[in-house]
Amino acid sequence: MTSTDMKIEGKEITIQTQGFSDIKNITDHVRNYVEEVGIDEGICNIFVIGSTATVSTIEFEPNLVKDMQEKLEDFISRDSTTHHGQTWGDDNGFSHIRATFMGPGITAPVHQGKVLLGTWQQIVVIDNDNRPRNRRIFLQVMGR
Amino acid sequence: MTSTDMKIEGKEITIQTQGFSDIKNITDHVRNYVEEVGIDEGICNIFVIGSTATVSTIEFEPNLVKDMQEKLEDFISRDSTTHHGQTWGDDNGFSHIRATFMGPGITAPVHQGKVLLGTWQQIVVIDNDNRPRNRRIFLQVMGR
Amino acid sequence: MTSTDMKIEGKEITIQTQGFSDIKNITDHVRNYVEEVGIDEGICNIFVIGSTATVSTIEFEPNLVKDMQEKLEDFISRDSTTHHGQTWGDDNGFSHIRATFMGPGITAPVHQGKVLLGTWQQIVVIDNDNRPRNRRIFLQVMGR
Repeated sequence: MTSTDMKIEGKEITIQTQGFSDIKNITDHVRNYVEEVGIDEGICNIFVIGSTATVSTIEFEPNLVKDMQEKLEDFISRDSTTHHGQTWGDDNGFSHIRATFMGPGITAPVHQGKVLLGTWQQIVVIDNDNRPRNRRIFLQVMGR
Repeated sequence: MTSTDMKIEGKEITIQTQGFSDIKNITDHVRNYVEEVGIDEGICNIFVIGSTATVSTIEFEPNLVKDMQEKLEDFISRDSTTHHGQTWGDDNGFSHIRATFMGPGITAPVHQGKVLLGTWQQIVVIDNDNRPRNRRIFLQVMGR
Repeated sequence: MTSTDMKIEGKEITIQTQGFSDIKNITDHVRNYVEEVGIDEGICNIFVIGSTATVSTIEFEPNLVKDMQEKLEDFISRDSTTHHGQTWGDDNGFSHIRATFMGPGITAPVHQGKVLLGTWQQIVVIDNDNRPRNRRIFLQVMGR
């Protein structure tokens, strides 16, 4: 490689979500942007701007999405009483805890021009908040 | 861009923690170092050196910090009996499990010279160990 | 530094696993590959290709490995009934949920030619699936 090929390009995307761990498949957004930037080898960082959502991967099919949502409800319920909710009155303490546990972002490898994922592995944003939102997600692509 | 602008700079910081999932806001450390390195576009990787702590993001306010700590205690208590503790006698099996579950680091995007975070989203180290420590965290900045 | 030193190199490794949150230490694979690529400063992204495994760090000793496996069983048991299992008959809904919770990868810093880890901190793949597999993991090294 020649270092003159090095590229760093980022953009923000917005995804409409319904909250309560609504899970949205953003794989095509990521794939398309990586192709648009045009790197062969590198990484794509996917990071949610905000403290009540998560980026991870899942086999994106409706039954498993429901299982994941039920497990998150079991982990910490939307009805949980929290100090955060009692103090600020916005009742989304459970949203924050889900999000901090799972983390705000992932970094996926790009190899031979493609985001490297399994066939049954999709990149998703999980919006744990307690209301519909326009979720801001940043895609940062680095490579050559 | 010209590739001659590419920068990679890392440094270690040390944060005093009290253990038992003490949560410390390190956002200013990260912001200041990114500014010092002086990139416009790129990433900052924040990684804890050690197996009993975690890096994530949270709305850093005292009530939510308390909620998170209570949830971690509920997830696996400091009083849990573990094979690790019974064998090595250091009684911090719960610390390791919290840390491995949540992971050792995050990578945050840098855009237009700034670490890109929500208004209520701070970068934190969560020290799950069972004693005060001087926590070593590495900041690796890459970009142009 | 001179930007002509910038390197981006990736390779896939395969690890044999037994499933049910089998935990394999891949630290030497990562260390050796970073040395082979030959960077002084940068990052190494470690990412599992597939939706039922996880990459994290742990103190890799057999007692703690057992503790982690027991906690994952307690978190969501291999015997859990899931919509995913009932629909597709592959009975690994629990595997997916463990993996999505913990995430598919980590990014570790490289400093002074070495992957920066604590003495008791190893990089592991946790295979949550319900059968033996040859796990594909991608290592992407970027730096100078």
